[in-house]
Amino acid sequence: MRPTIKDIASDTGLSITTISLVLNSKAENIPPRTKKRIFESVEKLGYRPNQIAVGLVKKRSYTVGLIISDIQNQFFATLAKGAEDECRRHGWNMILCNTNDEHQNDLNYINVLADKGVDGIIYGMSVDTNFEMAQECCNKMDHLNLPFIMADRYFDSLPYNAVIVDHQLGGYMATKHLIERGHRRIACVTGPNYLVDSALRLQGYQRAMEEAGLSVDSEIIYEGRYTMESGMDAMEFLRQKNFTAVFAFNDMMAYGVYLRARSEGLSVPKDFALVGYDDILFSQILETPLTTVHQPVYEMGMGAAQQLIQMIEGESPSQKYNVFTPTLVERKSS
Amino acid sequence: MRPTIKDIASDTGLSITTISLVLNSKAENIPPRTKKRIFESVEKLGYRPNQIAVGLVKKRSYTVGLIISDIQNQFFATLAKGAEDECRRHGWNMILCNTNDEHQNDLNYINVLADKGVDGIIYGMSVDTNFEMAQECCNKMDHLNLPFIMADRYFDSLPYNAVIVDHQLGGYMATKHLIERGHRRIACVTGPNYLVDSALRLQGYQRAMEEAGLSVDSEIIYEGRYTMESGMDAMEFLRQKNFTAVFAFNDMMAYGVYLRARSEGLSVPKDFALVGYDDILFSQILETPLTTVHQPVYEMGMGAAQQLIQMIEGESPSQKYNVFTPTLVERKSS
Repeated sequence: MRPTIKDIASDTGLSITTISLVLNSKAENIPPRTKKRIFESVEKLGYRPNQIAVGLVKKRSYTVGLIISDIQNQFFATLAKGAEDECRRHGWNMILCNTNDEHQNDLNYINVLADKGVDGIIYGMSVDTNFEMAQECCNKMDHLNLPFIMADRYFDSLPYNAVIVDHQLGGYMATKHLIERGHRRIACVTGPNYLVDSALRLQGYQRAMEEAGLSVDSEIIYEGRYTMESGMDAMEFLRQKNFTAVFAFNDMMAYGVYLRARSEGLSVPKDFALVGYDDILFSQILETPLTTVHQPVYEMGMGAAQQLIQMIEGESPSQKYNVFTPTLVERKSS
Repeated sequence: MRPTIKDIASDTGLSITTISLVLNSKAENIPPRTKKRIFESVEKLGYRPNQIAVGLVKKRSYTVGLIISDIQNQFFATLAKGAEDECRRHGWNMILCNTNDEHQNDLNYINVLADKGVDGIIYGMSVDTNFEMAQECCNKMDHLNLPFIMADRYFDSLPYNAVIVDHQLGGYMATKHLIERGHRRIACVTGPNYLVDSALRLQGYQRAMEEAGLSVDSEIIYEGRYTMESGMDAMEFLRQKNFTAVFAFNDMMAYGVYLRARSEGLSVPKDFALVGYDDILFSQILETPLTTVHQPVYEMGMGAAQQLIQMIEGESPSQKYNVFTPTLVERKSS
């Protein structure tokens, strides 16, 4: 059993009231020698004030929760690292829940984090989350009076704060780059259509195409699932089509396109140009390093933590969105 | 403020005692209609029993903590996923703390997890942990009466349970493979010398060399830090040396060797053979897919969770170590 204040009492022969006063820093009239005895016993027995005491006294645990959808995806690992480093700078802790991209787990972990007494949540929703599901999670956190901020994925019509990247701009930059390289037939491998981040990249793509007077051909737009496997499927789908460039809406799908193309004897950029989105570590390790849209993910994680801590401390953000700007990183694949 | 049982009382007009009986499933004599009113109010107000109540009644939170050292490392991401999937299968939750490979954070997060009332901890120690530091963490968990299991990294002289991979065998397999391919001058890029996992791989290397009647030349053994950068440094160190193969003690360092070699116009496997260790996802995406020692990391994560849950439920493991066997994955780099 975990040691309790009673064990400290038996060990020191002092009363629970005295010990409690000392541990809660309310013991002005208690001699230093007595305090020392108590602290030595605390140390010796490994006593930790339990959550009840801490909760009642401080009303704050200085811990935030982060809900992310896929810990094996470098994007979320980097987001988590940014958020955690920022928490640590402020003397806060962060605990992390991984949902395997299933909405039911988002809900479950909101309950777990609330039960564990976190002061707020950074909420990165699962990929299968539609508007109603997102609302369900947000309502739950609202009900629990847990301040929260959405990270990366969001729905515009939800009235909650979010840290986001300007994905319309990102989609526009990637497409414009390919157009400037002389491409006219640019295939797209999108994310799931119901996700705002994918829809925005597609809007950026369309805007760039229209500005250049090019028509958008839905025959070479493939709906992927943001996984490497779906990038492979996309290449399979595109192989008989007419295109000279592929814009994949994340790097993992770009790897899938790259791998399948390689296995069919096609080479990038000789046979077609390839641009990704995310700029995860391995994009520069590839033999043909990948041109991609860099998302300031680490900074976005930091921003999310910073803003959440401010919200917990009672400051409301001046703007609904904290928007981060992507940049194009040109490498050899385009 | 988070809703309390008092809010349920105001909302329903019922007494706190009644509500408490119903919520703790001890309300045999209370009419179903009353129960229904209470549950509706709980739902409406978003009430969650707080940790005090849950802790006192169940003495168990069905949540384990996982301490990992670097969330951006695919190895630990996979370990976490295995552990979490296994927890979920048993109806348990897992929360995760990332320590950025700093022992001080290991200690800190042990306290955080204890404060949050987890029932046990899977402890993956930081890379900077020496024997005394590991002991400090283990003593702390012991003091807190928190069952724990060490994952991957451990010290043989600590009397605690661990899930581990047979790294001596792994080092032996990798080296034997290179010897069978005709190599005699095999360079090593090790992990930090004080880490048991690195020392064991090195022992495996030495055993294979000796069995083949080859001498071990310390001039071509470089102590890395398990990072890609230290793989690059290793290649820098080795460039003027005499070797025909490199055995890097993890894949990240192998990538570093690969990248630096490429930037110097050297190619794998033409100029030298390269074998890694871990088998993380990107090793098969490289233009020259990496031969590597596959660690059953996902299974090890599962094993850790399974064993920890058994320990929490009062069963002691029959053996100190749960040992997983690595396998060699031959690809084009060797």
